[in-house]
Amino acid sequence: MKISIERAELLKAVAQAQSVVERRNTIPILANVLIEAEGSTISFRATDLDIEVVDRAPAQVEKAGATTVSAVMLHEIVRKLPDGALVTLMDDPASGRLVIEAGRSSFTLATLPREDFPVMASSDYTANFTAKAGELKRLFEKSRFAISTEETRYYLNGVYLHVATAEEGQMLRAVATDGHRLARIDAPLPAGAEGMPGVIVPRKTVGELRKLLDDEETPIEVSVSETKVRFATPRITLTSKVIDGTFPDYTRVIPMGNTRRLEVDASEFAKAVDRVATVSSERSRAVKLTLDADKLVLSVNAPDAGAAEEELVVAYADERLEIGFNAKYLLEIANQVDRENAVFLFNSSGDPTLMREGGDTSAVYVVMPMRV
Amino acid sequence: MKISIERAELLKAVAQAQSVVERRNTIPILANVLIEAEGSTISFRATDLDIEVVDRAPAQVEKAGATTVSAVMLHEIVRKLPDGALVTLMDDPASGRLVIEAGRSSFTLATLPREDFPVMASSDYTANFTAKAGELKRLFEKSRFAISTEETRYYLNGVYLHVATAEEGQMLRAVATDGHRLARIDAPLPAGAEGMPGVIVPRKTVGELRKLLDDEETPIEVSVSETKVRFATPRITLTSKVIDGTFPDYTRVIPMGNTRRLEVDASEFAKAVDRVATVSSERSRAVKLTLDADKLVLSVNAPDAGAAEEELVVAYADERLEIGFNAKYLLEIANQVDRENAVFLFNSSGDPTLMREGGDTSAVYVVMPMRV
Repeated sequence: MKISIERAELLKAVAQAQSVVERRNTIPILANVLIEAEGSTISFRATDLDIEVVDRAPAQVEKAGATTVSAVMLHEIVRKLPDGALVTLMDDPASGRLVIEAGRSSFTLATLPREDFPVMASSDYTANFTAKAGELKRLFEKSRFAISTEETRYYLNGVYLHVATAEEGQMLRAVATDGHRLARIDAPLPAGAEGMPGVIVPRKTVGELRKLLDDEETPIEVSVSETKVRFATPRITLTSKVIDGTFPDYTRVIPMGNTRRLEVDASEFAKAVDRVATVSSERSRAVKLTLDADKLVLSVNAPDAGAAEEELVVAYADERLEIGFNAKYLLEIANQVDRENAVFLFNSSGDPTLMREGGDTSAVYVVMPMRV
Repeated sequence: MKISIERAELLKAVAQAQSVVERRNTIPILANVLIEAEGSTISFRATDLDIEVVDRAPAQVEKAGATTVSAVMLHEIVRKLPDGALVTLMDDPASGRLVIEAGRSSFTLATLPREDFPVMASSDYTANFTAKAGELKRLFEKSRFAISTEETRYYLNGVYLHVATAEEGQMLRAVATDGHRLARIDAPLPAGAEGMPGVIVPRKTVGELRKLLDDEETPIEVSVSETKVRFATPRITLTSKVIDGTFPDYTRVIPMGNTRRLEVDASEFAKAVDRVATVSSERSRAVKLTLDADKLVLSVNAPDAGAAEEELVVAYADERLEIGFNAKYLLEIANQVDRENAVFLFNSSGDPTLMREGGDTSAVYVVMPMRV
């Protein structure tokens, strides 16, 4: 293999690949990135056995070939090279080394045979469709905060992506919950997604996906099977195993009959919650909401440290209500509100509460109250 | 006590005080800040028993008084208050609480009696002088990287500030070393500093000092005794115990007879060292310098990971020399160079090497070589 490539192109490709690589590996080959050069393209493939990413870049390929080197070291070297440098990669099969040259710098890296690199088996994808990066980004970004971190409830350690029937018809839906709060985000169903099996996309995959979805207008090719999901742009392909489990029936958790309606500026609300929560102890950050005619009082009482109270002018026309929440949960859902006011729908102080943005039902959040 | 103060003034005063407070305290009062209001001033005093800082701010004092509250919580609350808010602090001796009010927010914090707060005893300062913040900043900022972190060599855990005789006459000098490298920085001796006892200013004090020395033109009043050192602006007073130990005779470590002279662009040199060091293992980041007529080759050989080499055009007119250094040490001294080229003076590959900026002898660095 011998190729030349502009440093910025190389850095972009290697950066995405190395981020999939786990920092602590017991299997040496998993710390490496598989470099393959052919035609006028160089590709970088990295995997943690659950996720595989392939990033392609245009390059001048003098001699085709393939090898594997440490992903972290390659990334560090390329990152430190001066901007604008032309980088040459050459493998020397005799010594089992990869030589990297740029200007007056030269690096020799240990390699492992390409045959040892575990390429992910392909899957029989039962659904293939194209979605805008922006739509996918919204589905994952607005739901990911609610993903559970409890390893025993592994089936909650991801975002449940599936086809659902809403009032407006069939939708592409993302749901995440940890039992204390839930996010349900809808997007228009792309053509070809109708028969898609519901899949639980793991937390790490959701994180890696962000880089693919940066440019909102890019069309993303999505393929889904019972066991895998794949997202592809012309440059990057991200394939991930999905969580082998059954996502619980979340529809029963979403309250339909809550009638007590509070409307509040989401940003003002979040700042006030953050302020009063300062005095609470780290463990149980309980904030009490006391609602009266067009008035919301947020209060925290931490016997050891002190107390805090703040009053907000809101729209509320129902009877007096006192209800407590974990401050962190309130902040997280309030931070999901992009445009309009936050609308909360309460039932009693013991029942789950629903939140959405104005009248928009395409993003709905549920949060369980706590005793205060 | 009852006072009103503008939020920005309050935040500035509390921020400096709370940074001295240790996050993990077994003695509850040390987590608190002592608030004292009198005349038209409010002051915040914090201590870790080794350092004490007092920060004063103008305030409308309706009722003089004093109390103590959690420094971290007070800082967090003030930080989260909206910009421009007028903040009122009132203590309620009956309930033992401090009430903080701003707009529609109200906080009640637990207090501890002011009598329990350990105010640092004053010292008989034998030298008092005034120095520009910029001069002091240079002394400490250019030497601090060489402070030892080995607790057994406690007498190296700080910067040795003392009066020294250089070619130009008496100087105010800062020296720090960890046995592997050494920094020696000189500044003109301020009037009144002649009789100053040499003191070892602890690492944490050097860190806290930075905030005092931000504005380079501010005159700083410095007072020194055998056991304490004090730095004061009209607003802030920082008093610190000094390390009770004898700083070793550093003059013997500074080579005077090194004649092999290398001159190199410090920034280019640092970047090249950083690049070649990428392939070395974390433990012993040894970089080899090979010097020949006007040519410097930096190289690293890490048997497991690979190798790296880079050539630099330099000014060097002596005979060939090979010498190894810890990459981190080379980077740290190269990063101290502000203006001119870095000038290295070598003797042999086993002897300490000296570095300075051009012909400037007011900042001198020594670094021990390592076998490569």
